[in-house]
Amino acid sequence: MITRRGLLTGGAVTAAGALAGCASDTSARTLDVGSLVREVATGSRTEPFYGLHQAGVATEPQAHAVFIGFDLRPGTRKEALVRLLKLLTDDAARLTQGRPALADTEPELAANPARLTCTFGFGPGLFDAAGADSPVQPLPRFATDRLDKRWSGGDLLVQVCADDNVTVAHAVRMIVKDARSFARVRWTQRGFRSATRRNLMGQIEGTGNATDLDRAVWIGQGPLAGGTTLVLRRIRMALETWDAVDRTAREFTIGRRLDNGAPLTGVAERDEPDFAAKNRLGFPVISEYAHIRRAHVADPALRLLRRPYNYDDGLSPEGEPDAGLLFASYQADIDRQFVPIQRMLAEGDLLNEWITTIGSAVFAIPPGCAEGGWIGESLLS
Amino acid sequence: MITRRGLLTGGAVTAAGALAGCASDTSARTLDVGSLVREVATGSRTEPFYGLHQAGVATEPQAHAVFIGFDLRPGTRKEALVRLLKLLTDDAARLTQGRPALADTEPELAANPARLTCTFGFGPGLFDAAGADSPVQPLPRFATDRLDKRWSGGDLLVQVCADDNVTVAHAVRMIVKDARSFARVRWTQRGFRSATRRNLMGQIEGTGNATDLDRAVWIGQGPLAGGTTLVLRRIRMALETWDAVDRTAREFTIGRRLDNGAPLTGVAERDEPDFAAKNRLGFPVISEYAHIRRAHVADPALRLLRRPYNYDDGLSPEGEPDAGLLFASYQADIDRQFVPIQRMLAEGDLLNEWITTIGSAVFAIPPGCAEGGWIGESLLS
Repeated sequence: MITRRGLLTGGAVTAAGALAGCASDTSARTLDVGSLVREVATGSRTEPFYGLHQAGVATEPQAHAVFIGFDLRPGTRKEALVRLLKLLTDDAARLTQGRPALADTEPELAANPARLTCTFGFGPGLFDAAGADSPVQPLPRFATDRLDKRWSGGDLLVQVCADDNVTVAHAVRMIVKDARSFARVRWTQRGFRSATRRNLMGQIEGTGNATDLDRAVWIGQGPLAGGTTLVLRRIRMALETWDAVDRTAREFTIGRRLDNGAPLTGVAERDEPDFAAKNRLGFPVISEYAHIRRAHVADPALRLLRRPYNYDDGLSPEGEPDAGLLFASYQADIDRQFVPIQRMLAEGDLLNEWITTIGSAVFAIPPGCAEGGWIGESLLS
Repeated sequence: MITRRGLLTGGAVTAAGALAGCASDTSARTLDVGSLVREVATGSRTEPFYGLHQAGVATEPQAHAVFIGFDLRPGTRKEALVRLLKLLTDDAARLTQGRPALADTEPELAANPARLTCTFGFGPGLFDAAGADSPVQPLPRFATDRLDKRWSGGDLLVQVCADDNVTVAHAVRMIVKDARSFARVRWTQRGFRSATRRNLMGQIEGTGNATDLDRAVWIGQGPLAGGTTLVLRRIRMALETWDAVDRTAREFTIGRRLDNGAPLTGVAERDEPDFAAKNRLGFPVISEYAHIRRAHVADPALRLLRRPYNYDDGLSPEGEPDAGLLFASYQADIDRQFVPIQRMLAEGDLLNEWITTIGSAVFAIPPGCAEGGWIGESLLS
């Protein structure tokens, strides 16, 4: 029987010593052309970490995301939270720039930042633990919700996004290690986006997104100034029954064409929908219950910044996918922006026949920080 | 209460008619620069479908893969199998070239092939069902295996790979729909690769892969001529304890440097390991139990073509990842190539302290086909 200890102490140090003089070379990166194309497109690019706002909100969405909801361990108070957040800030500041975390066990995996962002959010429970009033509250219950505790709530959110999934996995691991003594993992949600912006139902995501971020997304004053809020909803898609609906009915349900995302009253994706337009029979071209009418917000200051990711977690024995959307919505004011839209949708969106919200969580997203600072300092100092 | 039927018949046909004259435009593709970079790198490229060999084996590995193992429904015999394989061949021939499947419910999702390949494999049970002798048999049991039925076996394999995960999801859906009346899903395994080729332990994958494919991978004669075999092993990594091991010990375990993948006796990844080299104390520089010595194959005709994908399926409450490798190995002859290597590894690979094979399946990979043909015709006609 071989013992690990015996073998490892046998020759390891000597072998390492013999190699100590070898400089790192670049052979590991002399890949084939296809890999190089992907690497150029993704690997070496970085997103800034320090700044007025946290990255990962206005950042052009990366291909992959993992959202982790943590529950604080009992007895975790403000002092411990400050320590935790200083640790996590340091991890994020390094990893996002392609540098290993402190005591990084796989520094090579940090060398490919691939536009990594690590974004932190505080749930109501974190403010309770810190003895502070929470600026965010759980959403009211919507009639169409079928929430599963497994995908809902959480005291602390860590959102990790990058264009390379190995980069995401490594960052998650480094962060979870540092969070572990303060918090337990409540849920993990993994998502992906296509460069085409299409979701698994075939619709183009992101049309009509908030563009005036200073009014619609970033909070202007108070301790959360420079921050925002996140509503994360796990929306399951009944792809099987959706597929059974014909194309015309699907376009009627959404209020947009499937081929290019144009409203049924327009020709191009970004055309403003004409909600007053009637067809020859006098019916509205865009139904009263069409998804885009229900979700429409005229005032740019009240729009949501949606940054959704698809999820696809496997197949049932009969081949039905467990798939849908991780609907991540950022807005300055949940009550003024998110809730009224969600109420309209819950009351009469045709799409509700094929989508069900099975998870829901809200977080305050603190502002960014300057070098030497830490995420959450305006809230917890 | 709103009824779907009432609403959908109200204005849908008229709305569609009003829009029938609108040509498709390109607005959906006027994306921001970052997305365009990704799209250029991935979206429009295709891999050929027809040919002597199936694609997805020698194909430069795509970023994403889903492996699906099916069990044939009781009573599925040769005639039904031929029908099934003709259907699946047609789906794959279309989808891989960026064209919708027949009766594709989301044709837009087919328009971004992203180097999609769909590869089919036959397990022993499929040959039984067809009344034929199986050219592949389940592997012998290895002492280190801890196989879970949930990730093992299967009559039919569908391997779907692409550089865009939405493309993968759509192709899987179209194929599963067509397979459903013949087979049930036994397991689904989802993986990803990094452009750096590093796995989640930080090691560079693929060094020393088979390069003489006509001898090592493609079968030369018989009904499987032009085909190969696949061994798919699900290898769980104990990343937590691996991280606790120091760098020197890890390099000693593998027999390679972590930074650039060079053997401990060399300076660059592709350098041939010198297994005879000794250190000053007279011990081998590359341990008798180092992973690369155990896995080493001198004869190019006996090497494996490894095409592994990482998996990372979430976190336990204490933050331990359910992660590892979907080790996909293609070889002309499992008994002559795969089994001896696996025996060497099972007997004494130091790495076994941190990896456990929890799933195992073997498939014959039929040759490719010409236009008008179908995958499996040399075996089932």
